[in-house]
Amino acid sequence: MKFATLNDGSLDGRLLIVSHQMNRALPVPDLAPSLLHALQHWETLAPALLARSQALDAGQAHGAIDFAPEDCAAPLPRSPQWLDGSAFLNHGQLMDKAFNKPPPPLVDTVPLMYQGASDDFLGSTADVALPSEADGIDFEGEFGVITGPVPMGVTPDAALDCIRLLVQINDWSLRALGPHEMKTGFGFVQAKPSTAFAPIAVTPDELGSAWRDGRIHMRLDVQWNDRRFGSPHGGEMSFGFGQLIAHAARTRRLSAGCIIGSGTVSNQSRDAGSACIAERRMIEKIDLGEIRTDFMRFGDRIRMQAMFDEGHAGPFGRIEQRVVPA
Amino acid sequence: MKFATLNDGSLDGRLLIVSHQMNRALPVPDLAPSLLHALQHWETLAPALLARSQALDAGQAHGAIDFAPEDCAAPLPRSPQWLDGSAFLNHGQLMDKAFNKPPPPLVDTVPLMYQGASDDFLGSTADVALPSEADGIDFEGEFGVITGPVPMGVTPDAALDCIRLLVQINDWSLRALGPHEMKTGFGFVQAKPSTAFAPIAVTPDELGSAWRDGRIHMRLDVQWNDRRFGSPHGGEMSFGFGQLIAHAARTRRLSAGCIIGSGTVSNQSRDAGSACIAERRMIEKIDLGEIRTDFMRFGDRIRMQAMFDEGHAGPFGRIEQRVVPA
Repeated sequence: MKFATLNDGSLDGRLLIVSHQMNRALPVPDLAPSLLHALQHWETLAPALLARSQALDAGQAHGAIDFAPEDCAAPLPRSPQWLDGSAFLNHGQLMDKAFNKPPPPLVDTVPLMYQGASDDFLGSTADVALPSEADGIDFEGEFGVITGPVPMGVTPDAALDCIRLLVQINDWSLRALGPHEMKTGFGFVQAKPSTAFAPIAVTPDELGSAWRDGRIHMRLDVQWNDRRFGSPHGGEMSFGFGQLIAHAARTRRLSAGCIIGSGTVSNQSRDAGSACIAERRMIEKIDLGEIRTDFMRFGDRIRMQAMFDEGHAGPFGRIEQRVVPA
Repeated sequence: MKFATLNDGSLDGRLLIVSHQMNRALPVPDLAPSLLHALQHWETLAPALLARSQALDAGQAHGAIDFAPEDCAAPLPRSPQWLDGSAFLNHGQLMDKAFNKPPPPLVDTVPLMYQGASDDFLGSTADVALPSEADGIDFEGEFGVITGPVPMGVTPDAALDCIRLLVQINDWSLRALGPHEMKTGFGFVQAKPSTAFAPIAVTPDELGSAWRDGRIHMRLDVQWNDRRFGSPHGGEMSFGFGQLIAHAARTRRLSAGCIIGSGTVSNQSRDAGSACIAERRMIEKIDLGEIRTDFMRFGDRIRMQAMFDEGHAGPFGRIEQRVVPA
């Protein structure tokens, strides 16, 4: 199944089932007003949602409308929790190498993860209003999962069964503010403004064999101002989502609707390019001896889309955003 | 006004207005089902809530019930965001001195703040279920504020006008897990399980002159297994809540219901004792040359209550919790 959320001005928006072709959509207010509601009552509602999805694909759903991503909010405009990993170790290794730093402790065995703000997510076409170009404005292309309820102490294997939906993420970052917040040890607050999401959240079966080993085996095509920036592949994720969820639930339970991110998709091959500017800058420093790429300017545009290995577009839709002054 | 939240099994609970004497309570389902709802519609609802509060105190409110803190959840069982400062610099200075560490960068001018989980708060008498005594179980007595909507880039002065309610907090911490998470720079995830709150959230006027300069000028009495542990005073807060809110809103807006914590209340005078075990251990290391106090065991109990300088109990009610195995 594919889901999106119509931006109707409410905090949770209105749930839409999206058709297989991603051209039609169906509100289901009699079943679930919002995607958060559907996730909180998943066991009860999933069969009826599936039946409605099948009717939509068969052209037999009453009340179907054209699907317009620009009218949509993030699949979850707010969520109970947003925890973002840094599960592509290649990304961190590039950062460490460029700065001639030792790796963080236990980096190979304990996932890195920060707690993000989850009350104000951006839709796929929402302008990104930020206070200053001097803050080092950067995108981060990621994959993520949305969980059902997760018990405290869940194992990585059992955690995979708690995954309800897969999503595609742009984790906006302010690079001038990050180093100070990392040095304090308290993690990111100012360095991580509102996070954006591609319009469609999908059940894992929508990916076929591209969902396996707790990883999304798809390329993430990233274009900055209409020029290719990178297309790294999700299969190189060093920790799977099961491990990330188990890490998050070590000392607390997670609520239905919790979102766990992969961190910037990053590949060892230089041909893959990057999914964030900070990583390209580190590669330039290592390979060319100097940083040549600046961070984003107001007016800049970013586009991100997940692609199957076979070459066709994935089911998340596109992120297409523009940075503007707040 | 004083507010509490009846635990009725729902995610947001049921709003109660609490009487001045803290012995009676009034549900107001016709005005606001939950405290979160009231905060999201504060400008519209505040006059009617005040009228109902006055009727309750006059013994003229229809539907009033006895107030039973043990039937209550946290005032906000879940909130859009929970950001905890470390605004009593004395606390950090003791930690640094004991470990012979340099202070974090900019510690005097930029507040320390971490992003906490806000989906699963504990009520004032809820058992605290944790996986292992080996994790270094510790309490942290704090004060906090709940905001209305806060615009990005708010000044510290304007931020004070965004404060709707004041709260008393027990920020449960797992000390064996904190140092690793601080070293990664990504902040706390496993080291901060669910946070607990005293049962009553109050409008600032309830504190009279004890609310001034953006600080709560009250002692926080802390008892561990019925023995005095400390009674540090909130007036020594190095950054006021206006500064903490402005720090949090530097690159993002905050939603109505956002909670900002002070961090562990901590005073320079040794006579004040401490509001967390970690700080007492550091004082023992500095003053006695060795750590003598262990962290909590399963079955241990903690009690926290804010007291006015004049010696009478504050309006938040008591936190009375017990640690149990998960």
